[in-house]
Amino acid sequence: MADSVNSLNCKEELVSLKAKYDEYVSEHLSLNMARGKPCTAQLDLSTGILEAGLLKNYKAEDGTEVRNYGVLDGIPECKRLFSEIMSVPAENIIIFGNSSLNIMYDYIAQCMISGAGDKPWCKCDKVKFLCPVPGYDRHFSILESFGIEMINIPMNPDGPDMNLVYEYIKDPRVKGLICVPMYSNPGGVTYSDEVVERFAAMKPAASDFRVIWDNAYCVHHLCDDHDELLNVFDAAKKYNSEDMFIEVSSTSKITLPGAGVSALAASANNIAQIKKRMACQTIGYDKVNQLRHASYFVNLDGIKAHMKKHAAIIAPKFDIVLRMFSENISDFASWTSPKGGYFISLDVKPGCAGRVVKLCKEAGVVLTGAGATYPYKKDPEDKNIRIAPTFPDTDELIKAVEILCVCVKIATLENN
Amino acid sequence: MADSVNSLNCKEELVSLKAKYDEYVSEHLSLNMARGKPCTAQLDLSTGILEAGLLKNYKAEDGTEVRNYGVLDGIPECKRLFSEIMSVPAENIIIFGNSSLNIMYDYIAQCMISGAGDKPWCKCDKVKFLCPVPGYDRHFSILESFGIEMINIPMNPDGPDMNLVYEYIKDPRVKGLICVPMYSNPGGVTYSDEVVERFAAMKPAASDFRVIWDNAYCVHHLCDDHDELLNVFDAAKKYNSEDMFIEVSSTSKITLPGAGVSALAASANNIAQIKKRMACQTIGYDKVNQLRHASYFVNLDGIKAHMKKHAAIIAPKFDIVLRMFSENISDFASWTSPKGGYFISLDVKPGCAGRVVKLCKEAGVVLTGAGATYPYKKDPEDKNIRIAPTFPDTDELIKAVEILCVCVKIATLENN
Repeated sequence: MADSVNSLNCKEELVSLKAKYDEYVSEHLSLNMARGKPCTAQLDLSTGILEAGLLKNYKAEDGTEVRNYGVLDGIPECKRLFSEIMSVPAENIIIFGNSSLNIMYDYIAQCMISGAGDKPWCKCDKVKFLCPVPGYDRHFSILESFGIEMINIPMNPDGPDMNLVYEYIKDPRVKGLICVPMYSNPGGVTYSDEVVERFAAMKPAASDFRVIWDNAYCVHHLCDDHDELLNVFDAAKKYNSEDMFIEVSSTSKITLPGAGVSALAASANNIAQIKKRMACQTIGYDKVNQLRHASYFVNLDGIKAHMKKHAAIIAPKFDIVLRMFSENISDFASWTSPKGGYFISLDVKPGCAGRVVKLCKEAGVVLTGAGATYPYKKDPEDKNIRIAPTFPDTDELIKAVEILCVCVKIATLENN
Repeated sequence: MADSVNSLNCKEELVSLKAKYDEYVSEHLSLNMARGKPCTAQLDLSTGILEAGLLKNYKAEDGTEVRNYGVLDGIPECKRLFSEIMSVPAENIIIFGNSSLNIMYDYIAQCMISGAGDKPWCKCDKVKFLCPVPGYDRHFSILESFGIEMINIPMNPDGPDMNLVYEYIKDPRVKGLICVPMYSNPGGVTYSDEVVERFAAMKPAASDFRVIWDNAYCVHHLCDDHDELLNVFDAAKKYNSEDMFIEVSSTSKITLPGAGVSALAASANNIAQIKKRMACQTIGYDKVNQLRHASYFVNLDGIKAHMKKHAAIIAPKFDIVLRMFSENISDFASWTSPKGGYFISLDVKPGCAGRVVKLCKEAGVVLTGAGATYPYKKDPEDKNIRIAPTFPDTDELIKAVEILCVCVKIATLENN
């Protein structure tokens, strides 16, 4: 009896939700919560970086003419800035172009063609990578493009399931792992000290195993009570495993996406190998832009002050989403409440994510594709949706989340 | 009798030249004619490109916010500018970062990993490339880094020896050719219409044969009566061979080396394949810098006017070198008199180039290393030296060439 009442209630609720949904559809909206893009107010924070006056007669502090050819690995003041951002000595830093994604792609390309150890990966029958999931879709695209087989590693609240990682690395065909260790994309998880320590202590069967440590959000806190990530190179020192880690970061979400500066941190051995490749690849990256960044921020304090301005713009957007989720879909879904980064990870009931994204799309709300947070775009439970709250303005965001919540309810009730 | 008089004269001359040389050595000079770098006066021509006022509220003409993520292949106005520079439709252009060298490296890396046809080149037992010589050392470094075997193709006054090229391309392991078709580095040769036509008409045994057409100096004329290069894609149309050509260019020596914009031109098939790879490699290149360039020049007329200012600065430097060579070493060497580009190719007597470069170095004049203009740094006759007259100021240039001429004479007489 109780069940059929419930069932009747569900049906009624579904009818009422669908009526609401149809109203949204008739509004012909165009809202986008798909990509982790800064909003215009955030871009405006860095207007000053484009002023020619910053360029100090085009001379780096060591006298280098930044407008001319030369300097493969970055001007000293820019290396020092990233040394402070990444807490790694400047001699272990290389400054690249505008894209840390490009650094990662090129590094894996180098492993494919020349190898990270004795043998080029392209000469191996099979190369496998471990992928903590849900994760960053563009990481998976890189690996897929090289034909590298990807293995899902579930995330715990303190980082990837390291017991499982330790099992998989017994296989010498498992050559690496790619991850965002702080404010992970999309979960917002910062790996615990214990997890970082276990990374450092790994003894993979493959001696040329590499961890791509994509520290994209290392200074991207949303609140003062923010997470801290143990420095992986400090941890690795104990185990003599520094060669296993390739860390990258960038100013894409500090200054201007597309017009920022990116950097790599690695052991002396890896730096030497990478520079050797770079010396064939380019004469040097954009030193004018490096000088812009170094002059504008001066040091880590400059960066921190700037990041607080970002937080002041975007933290309220995260709060809106989280509050609306709590008020509307707490019986239908679970989600993360990150202290930094660019995403909220929403888990709907298994089997519903694709339907939610489709419903949203038809009502004019574009979300990251269902499955995108998994290798091969295959979310085994079809439940994860990546929410990117930063780009829309507040009104649009509220509307988009309102619609999203309705769609989550509809998909869940339909699936009951 | 005449011979021994000559021999005596030679010895006397050598003694007097060495005395002069020792004087230079005692001056402890530091002069550099090694790299094709613009001088400061040339860099100053582009100061305006760094003004923030050029950036038009950060909007590309199609409304794209250039400070944010997005646009894989370049903003429309920048593609149009390169379309005019390279005489190729805008839809066949991709805009990249600051380095055309990087475009070439990445393209060959892509061929290694994924192939240009059915089979990745890294899966082939052997990959060979044809290299017109003397040529650009950084081209050779790229090929060598991938383990591609390089085959010398001698240059004629109108371009590479195409009969020899036609012989070599019968070998399916010969997968490509890399060259600078206009104002070649270092010879200053512009390929004749007939040579370009023969390139277009090639039917290599390898169906995935690629010509890397590095059109670095396409607008870099030194005089009004300048060379013209037949458009290789126009020629290729007749033979349906457009897929064979990958053309690159950049503003490195138009605006600022290291802070310029580079571009690739290719067939629709190749553009599609390259964009597919790029989509994994990056979210997009620096659109702010693309907008700077497009706004600053507007169109090809803007570029042409700007290049005349470069010529006004550097053509007199070429004239100084050529005049001093004629006055001092016409019995000892031969050289090219280019109408554009960045180099003069100096041929001393066989067996003397290494000695000349060493003598110069010890007297404080740095030249491009002997052999650098050949694959594997091996000049089979040890006779070619690349002269780069643009970077030194006039007084330094005169001094450097004076010393060079003395060294050429000493090395020749020693070798008699």
